[in-house]
Amino acid sequence: MTTIPSLGYSIEIGDLLQGSLSKLLSEEFSTRKKVIICDENTHENCVPYLTTSIDELANAEIIVLPAGEENKILEICAQVWEALSEYKIQRNDIILNVGGGMITDLGGFVASIYKRGVDYMNIPTSLLAMVDASAGGKTGVDLGVYKNQLGLFSTPRLVVCDNIFLGTLPDEELLWGKAEMLKHGLIQSKEHWLNLKTKPVKDITIEDIAVSVAIKNEIVKADFKEENVRKGLNFGHTIGHALEGFFLEQDKKAHGHCVAWGIVAESLLAAKFGTLPMEEFKEIFAHIQSEYPQIKLEPDNLTHLIELMKHDKKNNSKRINFTTISTIGVSHIDQAFSEKQIQEVLQELFIAH
Amino acid sequence: MTTIPSLGYSIEIGDLLQGSLSKLLSEEFSTRKKVIICDENTHENCVPYLTTSIDELANAEIIVLPAGEENKILEICAQVWEALSEYKIQRNDIILNVGGGMITDLGGFVASIYKRGVDYMNIPTSLLAMVDASAGGKTGVDLGVYKNQLGLFSTPRLVVCDNIFLGTLPDEELLWGKAEMLKHGLIQSKEHWLNLKTKPVKDITIEDIAVSVAIKNEIVKADFKEENVRKGLNFGHTIGHALEGFFLEQDKKAHGHCVAWGIVAESLLAAKFGTLPMEEFKEIFAHIQSEYPQIKLEPDNLTHLIELMKHDKKNNSKRINFTTISTIGVSHIDQAFSEKQIQEVLQELFIAH
Repeated sequence: MTTIPSLGYSIEIGDLLQGSLSKLLSEEFSTRKKVIICDENTHENCVPYLTTSIDELANAEIIVLPAGEENKILEICAQVWEALSEYKIQRNDIILNVGGGMITDLGGFVASIYKRGVDYMNIPTSLLAMVDASAGGKTGVDLGVYKNQLGLFSTPRLVVCDNIFLGTLPDEELLWGKAEMLKHGLIQSKEHWLNLKTKPVKDITIEDIAVSVAIKNEIVKADFKEENVRKGLNFGHTIGHALEGFFLEQDKKAHGHCVAWGIVAESLLAAKFGTLPMEEFKEIFAHIQSEYPQIKLEPDNLTHLIELMKHDKKNNSKRINFTTISTIGVSHIDQAFSEKQIQEVLQELFIAH
Repeated sequence: MTTIPSLGYSIEIGDLLQGSLSKLLSEEFSTRKKVIICDENTHENCVPYLTTSIDELANAEIIVLPAGEENKILEICAQVWEALSEYKIQRNDIILNVGGGMITDLGGFVASIYKRGVDYMNIPTSLLAMVDASAGGKTGVDLGVYKNQLGLFSTPRLVVCDNIFLGTLPDEELLWGKAEMLKHGLIQSKEHWLNLKTKPVKDITIEDIAVSVAIKNEIVKADFKEENVRKGLNFGHTIGHALEGFFLEQDKKAHGHCVAWGIVAESLLAAKFGTLPMEEFKEIFAHIQSEYPQIKLEPDNLTHLIELMKHDKKNNSKRINFTTISTIGVSHIDQAFSEKQIQEVLQELFIAH
């Protein structure tokens, strides 16, 4: 069990039965109501393990939401709030969010706003949620096609990442998480990048997960409100989120692939118009291409993609800001590129020639 | 102009043209978009004064909401968020909430959650909002009959209370605000109570308002998250909010009267079952009775009222907690009374004999 101290709470990585979850529930929350928020999938695959192996959760109220990022919306929150009111949940009760990023993002948001804040814990059950959502305190839901437009910074009481939950996930879903882990290597640790690059997604270990969580955790501890260094975590995401929004509009889901190809595109920006050596770009491109299906666009999609980037909450006024890398393992925030430069890169990577 | 420093922002009380509003808008927010959130009434009576006398607001986007506490709901927030997205409002733009407590509560909530937080300023235009909502950072909306079930603690950039806006308000609405001011006197300052008691509501001065704001501000600065002393401000509100919820269910609005009579009822609890001298109760009763219309209930309403109190977010488990006073000007938090005692008091005050 690796325990990573974060902002007023711990992230435990390993066997959840060996950690502090059960103790916390049986001591501080012994007389309090427990609510589990999950989706249809984790209700079937993960929640029974928790309610049968942890006595304190045997009688928890369970709120089951429809699965899928398209349900990370305010209307679903409203239903959860109604349910919490019906269960007469009070300020000092406890909510456990059991699921992927959709559940931990939405559940954290729901808890932070209900009666001006109820304690919650996160038990991420996807690789992506473990390495991306377990540290950082970002909670929120989508508004139309715009991701995470509503939300707030708040911190859970405890996060537990147990890879027992990863066993049943398809490779494709594990790849979504691996894209974030590759990013952690590219912006901060060449060693992590080199280690992950040679490793099929099924072979990722709990120690690899702990390395990624530790990298992210150090960054968010230094800059919780994303005023400076935390922007480093946006590497790959300005273009990645625009791609994701674009495919979401067309009812196609492709998160992991979008971020992976966003990493490639922003690396190419850095190589062509920044200081990243072209051979390092080629190393990044070759690896991502070997694991992630190629993304294809039509020429007349490009203007719309750039519009989506402009709307991204990371941008003020009319400049489009990026985080870039100057070499694998070293990142730089607030690097502006022109629409023409971005178009050139998108054209080169995603339009059939 | 009285300036009261609060938690990272100032509350200015007096002529808003003499304060820092215009300077802040023309300096820090000179290139930023401005959005005014108001209701139909303040749109007609207050917003024109702002947009014509402050150059920086001449081109502000204006979002007009339907007036009334019954619109302090999530569905209205969703419409405002959609509008902010359409106006492409970014994190570093500024929202001005111009209205009564419904607008400042909802507008603060909307701003605090949009893109994980946009700066906002409050310009309360009712006496109640000036003395109650200007300090304390509570934002939120109602969920069904339960008041402020959704919300968070957040702070505006600036609050300006200018009594130019009070001129057009009917006496009844001023009385709602006076009830909170009387409460400030009862829990903290006998002098403030005695001063207000002799003063018709139309004669309340900007200095009286400043005294109330200062009392509330000192309390919330000492205990922002309402873990101890801030509960003192709940005096009159446990019963007051239950009465309000009860009348809201019946589509009757009666906020100020409910809090005023909640003060009487909780004073009677303190006199009969605590240490408040009966003659001080009589002084409180006589004054409130002289200004606020009598509230009348049926015997079979009492059980339901107590159910509403139990659901109040201030209560954990099954006890009903109150703030009481031991003498005018001295309050005590976390005083539990039994359902029987509460019934007895409600019976004595509100059921025709």
